[in-house]
Amino acid sequence: MNVKTLKRLLEDIRKGEMKVSEAMERLKTLPFEELEFATLDTHRSLRQGYPEVIYGEGKSAAQIKEIAKRMKARKENILITRVDCVKARAIKRAFPKATHNTVARTVFIKSHRIKKTGKGTVLVICAGTSDIPVAEEASVTAESMGNDVKRLYDVGVAGIHRLFHRKGDIFSANVLIVAAGMEGALPSVVSGLVARPVIAVPTSVGYGANLGGLTTLMAMLNSCASGISVVNIDNGFGAAYVASLINRE
Amino acid sequence: MNVKTLKRLLEDIRKGEMKVSEAMERLKTLPFEELEFATLDTHRSLRQGYPEVIYGEGKSAAQIKEIAKRMKARKENILITRVDCVKARAIKRAFPKATHNTVARTVFIKSHRIKKTGKGTVLVICAGTSDIPVAEEASVTAESMGNDVKRLYDVGVAGIHRLFHRKGDIFSANVLIVAAGMEGALPSVVSGLVARPVIAVPTSVGYGANLGGLTTLMAMLNSCASGISVVNIDNGFGAAYVASLINRE
Amino acid sequence: MNVKTLKRLLEDIRKGEMKVSEAMERLKTLPFEELEFATLDTHRSLRQGYPEVIYGEGKSAAQIKEIAKRMKARKENILITRVDCVKARAIKRAFPKATHNTVARTVFIKSHRIKKTGKGTVLVICAGTSDIPVAEEASVTAESMGNDVKRLYDVGVAGIHRLFHRKGDIFSANVLIVAAGMEGALPSVVSGLVARPVIAVPTSVGYGANLGGLTTLMAMLNSCASGISVVNIDNGFGAAYVASLINRE
Amino acid sequence: MNVKTLKRLLEDIRKGEMKVSEAMERLKTLPFEELEFATLDTHRSLRQGYPEVIYGEGKSAAQIKEIAKRMKARKENILITRVDCVKARAIKRAFPKATHNTVARTVFIKSHRIKKTGKGTVLVICAGTSDIPVAEEASVTAESMGNDVKRLYDVGVAGIHRLFHRKGDIFSANVLIVAAGMEGALPSVVSGLVARPVIAVPTSVGYGANLGGLTTLMAMLNSCASGISVVNIDNGFGAAYVASLINRE
Amino acid sequence: MNVKTLKRLLEDIRKGEMKVSEAMERLKTLPFEELEFATLDTHRSLRQGYPEVIYGEGKSAAQIKEIAKRMKARKENILITRVDCVKARAIKRAFPKATHNTVARTVFIKSHRIKKTGKGTVLVICAGTSDIPVAEEASVTAESMGNDVKRLYDVGVAGIHRLFHRKGDIFSANVLIVAAGMEGALPSVVSGLVARPVIAVPTSVGYGANLGGLTTLMAMLNSCASGISVVNIDNGFGAAYVASLINRE
Amino acid sequence: MNVKTLKRLLEDIRKGEMKVSEAMERLKTLPFEELEFATLDTHRSLRQGYPEVIYGEGKSAAQIKEIAKRMKARKENILITRVDCVKARAIKRAFPKATHNTVARTVFIKSHRIKKTGKGTVLVICAGTSDIPVAEEASVTAESMGNDVKRLYDVGVAGIHRLFHRKGDIFSANVLIVAAGMEGALPSVVSGLVARPVIAVPTSVGYGANLGGLTTLMAMLNSCASGISVVNIDNGFGAAYVASLINRE
Amino acid sequence: MNVKTLKRLLEDIRKGEMKVSEAMERLKTLPFEELEFATLDTHRSLRQGYPEVIYGEGKSAAQIKEIAKRMKARKENILITRVDCVKARAIKRAFPKATHNTVARTVFIKSHRIKKTGKGTVLVICAGTSDIPVAEEASVTAESMGNDVKRLYDVGVAGIHRLFHRKGDIFSANVLIVAAGMEGALPSVVSGLVARPVIAVPTSVGYGANLGGLTTLMAMLNSCASGISVVNIDNGFGAAYVASLINRE
Amino acid sequence: MNVKTLKRLLEDIRKGEMKVSEAMERLKTLPFEELEFATLDTHRSLRQGYPEVIYGEGKSAAQIKEIAKRMKARKENILITRVDCVKARAIKRAFPKATHNTVARTVFIKSHRIKKTGKGTVLVICAGTSDIPVAEEASVTAESMGNDVKRLYDVGVAGIHRLFHRKGDIFSANVLIVAAGMEGALPSVVSGLVARPVIAVPTSVGYGANLGGLTTLMAMLNSCASGISVVNIDNGFGAAYVASLINRE
Repeated sequence: MNVKTLKRLLEDIRKGEMKVSEAMERLKTLPFEELEFATLDTHRSLRQGYPEVIYGEGKSAAQIKEIAKRMKARKENILITRVDCVKARAIKRAFPKATHNTVARTVFIKSHRIKKTGKGTVLVICAGTSDIPVAEEASVTAESMGNDVKRLYDVGVAGIHRLFHRKGDIFSANVLIVAAGMEGALPSVVSGLVARPVIAVPTSVGYGANLGGLTTLMAMLNSCASGISVVNIDNGFGAAYVASLINRE
Repeated sequence: MNVKTLKRLLEDIRKGEMKVSEAMERLKTLPFEELEFATLDTHRSLRQGYPEVIYGEGKSAAQIKEIAKRMKARKENILITRVDCVKARAIKRAFPKATHNTVARTVFIKSHRIKKTGKGTVLVICAGTSDIPVAEEASVTAESMGNDVKRLYDVGVAGIHRLFHRKGDIFSANVLIVAAGMEGALPSVVSGLVARPVIAVPTSVGYGANLGGLTTLMAMLNSCASGISVVNIDNGFGAAYVASLINRE
Repeated sequence: MNVKTLKRLLEDIRKGEMKVSEAMERLKTLPFEELEFATLDTHRSLRQGYPEVIYGEGKSAAQIKEIAKRMKARKENILITRVDCVKARAIKRAFPKATHNTVARTVFIKSHRIKKTGKGTVLVICAGTSDIPVAEEASVTAESMGNDVKRLYDVGVAGIHRLFHRKGDIFSANVLIVAAGMEGALPSVVSGLVARPVIAVPTSVGYGANLGGLTTLMAMLNSCASGISVVNIDNGFGAAYVASLINRE
Repeated sequence: MNVKTLKRLLEDIRKGEMKVSEAMERLKTLPFEELEFATLDTHRSLRQGYPEVIYGEGKSAAQIKEIAKRMKARKENILITRVDCVKARAIKRAFPKATHNTVARTVFIKSHRIKKTGKGTVLVICAGTSDIPVAEEASVTAESMGNDVKRLYDVGVAGIHRLFHRKGDIFSANVLIVAAGMEGALPSVVSGLVARPVIAVPTSVGYGANLGGLTTLMAMLNSCASGISVVNIDNGFGAAYVASLINRE
Repeated sequence: MNVKTLKRLLEDIRKGEMKVSEAMERLKTLPFEELEFATLDTHRSLRQGYPEVIYGEGKSAAQIKEIAKRMKARKENILITRVDCVKARAIKRAFPKATHNTVARTVFIKSHRIKKTGKGTVLVICAGTSDIPVAEEASVTAESMGNDVKRLYDVGVAGIHRLFHRKGDIFSANVLIVAAGMEGALPSVVSGLVARPVIAVPTSVGYGANLGGLTTLMAMLNSCASGISVVNIDNGFGAAYVASLINRE
Repeated sequence: MNVKTLKRLLEDIRKGEMKVSEAMERLKTLPFEELEFATLDTHRSLRQGYPEVIYGEGKSAAQIKEIAKRMKARKENILITRVDCVKARAIKRAFPKATHNTVARTVFIKSHRIKKTGKGTVLVICAGTSDIPVAEEASVTAESMGNDVKRLYDVGVAGIHRLFHRKGDIFSANVLIVAAGMEGALPSVVSGLVARPVIAVPTSVGYGANLGGLTTLMAMLNSCASGISVVNIDNGFGAAYVASLINRE
Repeated sequence: MNVKTLKRLLEDIRKGEMKVSEAMERLKTLPFEELEFATLDTHRSLRQGYPEVIYGEGKSAAQIKEIAKRMKARKENILITRVDCVKARAIKRAFPKATHNTVARTVFIKSHRIKKTGKGTVLVICAGTSDIPVAEEASVTAESMGNDVKRLYDVGVAGIHRLFHRKGDIFSANVLIVAAGMEGALPSVVSGLVARPVIAVPTSVGYGANLGGLTTLMAMLNSCASGISVVNIDNGFGAAYVASLINRE
Repeated sequence: MNVKTLKRLLEDIRKGEMKVSEAMERLKTLPFEELEFATLDTHRSLRQGYPEVIYGEGKSAAQIKEIAKRMKARKENILITRVDCVKARAIKRAFPKATHNTVARTVFIKSHRIKKTGKGTVLVICAGTSDIPVAEEASVTAESMGNDVKRLYDVGVAGIHRLFHRKGDIFSANVLIVAAGMEGALPSVVSGLVARPVIAVPTSVGYGANLGGLTTLMAMLNSCASGISVVNIDNGFGAAYVASLINRE
């Protein structure tokens, strides 16, 4: 039931074309239908300019293609994350115009020009070369969501001068995503330099007592710098999603 | 060395009043002084309208008063967090106009009117009554940083209808801070309803296998909803700081 | 808005005493009010015969008394859990007829006879004398919720013959709550003997590598016996609540 | 020794056909034999209508078939859990009438009609599509144990309206099994809506700091809602077993 | 029911003074009574020469005295572990002949001469001075259980020559208890020197990443030396109990 | 330097054939050489009747064969643990008389009759069928070390009557090894029945929150029964080694 | 900008060939360029005699060859760590003179004689044969960095006499690297014998509750001996790097 | 037995005043006595210029005074760590010339001028004001061991320019100790700037998911910079000890 059908129901009562008891009956399920209506509406406005997203891990190429086809019917752009090369090739056979980013492990199926929704630049920084896949997932996601994205890769704290070289990009960014593994110190350093929100993404890069990224995650949550919030390990997509919400007009 | 003294040095060279070798010597430390200059400048613009902040835990009342006095000289507002009643009373004796929020465990020393820097509303939500101190720390901090703050407390997922009652506030907020303990489910539910960034604050509320908030923290990082980023356990201040950066004009 | 006011609204429309647009406006918040109505209704039926419950930990005696007074007005029985002796005495001064169970650390304020809601017996078993407070919290809670409760305390697996002595009670129970600390083996043994649901409560009893009950909790979740489900550490109240739901007519 | 042989022994004594000393000797092992007799009897009554169950993980197809053949001789229904497609095919070659549920990873060998033992409906809910294998294992198990099962899949808290759509099924269920991964919030929300026992099943679905389901497990144990008990990670079978015990006539 | 009553019952049947049906009824509970009989018998023989033991932690002085009085009636020696000075004094007021070992935190109430049950020497070694309370608890326990005990304290691996000085005691011991904190290396070194069983007791001595003894416990379980088994953290009593069983004639 | 060369040195001094200063120089390294001598002697006596042992995991078949050949020269029996079928076959090609126990994953190369060193029986108990490989490793090891071994497999606590059936073997054993996975309750139950040392072996059997045996290990260390000590996860060999030391004449 | 260009700039100002404003503009980025200059200078002096290092794990043979070629142009020696045999062969095809250490899993490409930078000996000790790859990685790295290296392998604490045999090497070393797995006791013993810095390297060798080296790491950090510092699990390279810095002239 | 008595023994043999057999008997224990002699000798040379050290935590003032008095007799300097104000005052009553450092929680009793043993400067850096006690413990310890110490406190990565201001001290230090809490990033940044060994000390400063310093410890072990080794949490003493060994002539 939506606004229109609700109005018609009330008018039917007014005209005497529907009994009060019958209306009562139909309104009993209203809370749930209405809630959905409200939420969906929110979601719709939220999604304006945002792609449909398929999380590819644990889905077969066949499943992904099936979902993508149904989405395609809505004429939305589609972003598929966490796909290996084999799946990506299979998807490209079904959607020949899809673009595959091998580093980010994403496939993007474009139905229309991406609408610019971000008011400033999203700067995606990462510490080492091994963090690039996560950073690139963030970059590709942020771009597909209508943001101007700049990349600043391989600028870890052990050679901190590399970071300072790009001071212009750092100082002019509206939101910053910082992906790092190992001791996860980079977000603290970056956040000490800027007055904008920093979203930290721990990566599972490291060995020994890295514990699959848990050490990095914990270190980031304990940052001595204010202005940092954290997403899950390797979650480049999630970081970009938060950044997009922040960067929206 | 700042811009003015650098300019003077260069002019002295030009006029022949300083030798190149002498200038070389003085410029040797330039990188570091300059960096400070640049960074401080950044920080200064960042702090416009933001209070000076003292983290009160582990500091004696005497120490806090000493720091506050020096800060006071700069004519800035001062926010002191994590102070118990005894410390707060001692501080109030030194700064009689200070206001003590017993729930948030904060003291605020106002030097001038808080300048409005936030463009929308920061909505601070919490799940249970025991989460209120953390939520209130976030609220007080956000207010002192120039944001309009609305509070929506005690609306946990086990009685989810209480949350839906305040849909107006939820839908109109620009940034949302959600504090919760125990299973930490509230941020997921809230984030599913809105198209704005949600900052999740795990609290150490709970018993048994709560592990001092670690369970809640982990649950929030694993949220099935996009649009959530997380700060450290009980870190109401940090959440408000991030929210303020997002909400700035 | 409840069923009565909704009906009146619809009749007002029918009679032409309210405009459709005005009704639309009032119905806009319907989902949330209605949901509450629905949920509360559910809850009300659930609570028939169940006491109001106050979790006493972290609340002052004054706060507990204040909450209890407001609850008392609804003429319901009141169960207060996790209260130490000092708080209990303070509560008893306000409610002289309240009964204080020093072992279970509970206070019970009776407004009316407890209505029997359980169809069978709830048997509360515990392994050692140190587990008795948790077991007794479960027993008192289950009794206050209208169940017939039998107690079988101090029957740990290291002297398993003590358990077998009470085979009659074990075989005739409808639901079994088994509290144990240390290696948490008792629920497995009990569940191997009966064909009824066993709710395991890990207690924080133990020392060394007990990890505050975490070891026990994990052991219980890994039970080799089917028919066991687990609640949080020391959560006697929670176990009794689940047992009551199972045991309801 | 069973009731019959015990009776004969006593009668032999009475008739003088056996000496007391000889009877004493034979009765020396009585405790152990008797215990078995008692327990088995209990178990037998428990199993009425319940299938024999084989946990397939870590067993070869040959081993499973061998066990199943011996069980088949007892004319019971047989449920085999955790079997991949290769094993399932091998089993089906030996038992051509067996039904293989590829999602639940179960094989069911039917010897007779399943006897209805459950008095109400078991509702199996899950949060995301990746939780379906665990939920389906629970559903298939509950059905094979004589329960009416309803399924409500893919209704996670990030889009909570989907859950409310099925309010009818939720409110009318006698026992609810709720499987969820990630932050594990769904059982809390469901338990807040109903007055029936909820059995929470954490799944190992998630990535990053999910820790193989441990985060979800801990979150569920810390639920703010009463009425929830928890089984081990991915243990759909265990949840269904508990639910069946609760739902028995 | 014990052997005597069972015999009488059988004779009553033989004589026709009891009906088979009546005997059947009485024998129904036999397994449980018998089991107890069997077990207790076992236990009784086990305890010959062993003291009764009260674990004092978490019990009040009054409770301990009460239990001790009932035990005293059986004319057994009594060992009370984990008692602080206040409790010990209170106990000594009730049992003036009791001996209080302040280091081991034990009180021993002697009813009769300790019967020698151990065939060799139990050597109790500890690494540092802070491990002495745990080592002494082991020594006192082993002595009270009838063993010849030798002590070799403060011989940690960082000054390994101290250990070698007592080679005579090490080589001649029948069982060795080795208590150590920190990195827990001592049991490995000792076990490499002897051909007798070594029982390792991790202590909670240490700071930083010691994790309350967990690090030590784990290190001992991972010993590169064969011949070591481990008891719980700080469990001097448990180690002595195991050593006594090994050392029995 | 050994006893003989030391003696000659002293005699050379006595005869004036060596200077004191020269002797001093040669004795400077004495501590270390002597220590070896002493220790090796100890070890030799320890090993009387014990096989040489090769831990096969992480070693190639070629490496194992090479080591075994050198050992064979000493005419000792050789036990190789943790070998898969491929390696075992390769070893058997080199030592055709070697016996391969596929369940225990051991190979035994016999040079002479195993000398009986154990004075009583070692009883090896395990809880479930999946624990058998660990139990069998213990059994084979104990046998190869000269003990009489009895096996009691698949007698877990969920069907505790199976355990009691073998009361004879349990009561007559001199040392008991108990291997169990999941909640690890079996050692507690067994230790409650006997007056002999119980060595508990946690196995990595289980799923979900079993944590690779860590849960079981912790549960066993927290056993409420006295008389239990614990070895590392899956360490059947280590348990048998300790048991042999205990069981030695 | 480096010293030369800075000097030219200042001279241009002095000569009036550059305006102050123009110089100001160019100096604006000075901090960052200068910092790099300063840091690089530091690094250059640091690297004198040190090889370029490529961490081979997670890089393809093609990537490694590409990086090595660019490095080769600088005429430096190149050390590649963590390469398996397949990669090593591929690298050797491109650099036929490269030497492959199969145990250390390193490849070394020599451009010039290694300059001796270490003033004393680096002694690399390891506990068991399984620790040798980590120890050998440390040895090879330390050698390639210009140190005299001695190896002392397979001298674990369970047979401590083997260690004492090499007292000469131990007492004369300038820095000691000690690699050990399992309980990680060796560094404590070694550090108790010498007056030089000991760098402990936990290895992931072990099974059961070794937790991938975490247990060893924690044990080493809790060493009772002073003079030990620790690097990450299996990090032979890192230990050698620290040792080289200590050992430099 | 020491060098002198050994010599006399040999001379007695030479003179015929002692029989070879008697000498053999007395030399039987030589390895152990000798070892001590050798080790002590080593230690003595190590300790030249080093103070005697008492770890004060867990010792009473009386115990500390007793130990100090015995040490004082050897005319050595004495360093007492981890003493609170009450204990320090008590110690000063016994040793009026002792100096108490309230921040470092140390007391120093000087018997003679500290001998300079360090060849360069030890630079002690810490990140925040709360890390100062740990840093100061390191500084005081290093000074008392004969090193020139420079302090560089409160220079955390969130305001990294403060660190760069002291570049002179950083570049000229021979060994660097870096204490930090929270995310522990400072050692990585420092190590990237210098070519000298960095000893990282994690502090337990932080809150929420800091886990008592464990997060910081883990982050430091995972540093992306080479040249760092780590000591236990809050172990300022241990870091200074390692630094002193490195810095020795």
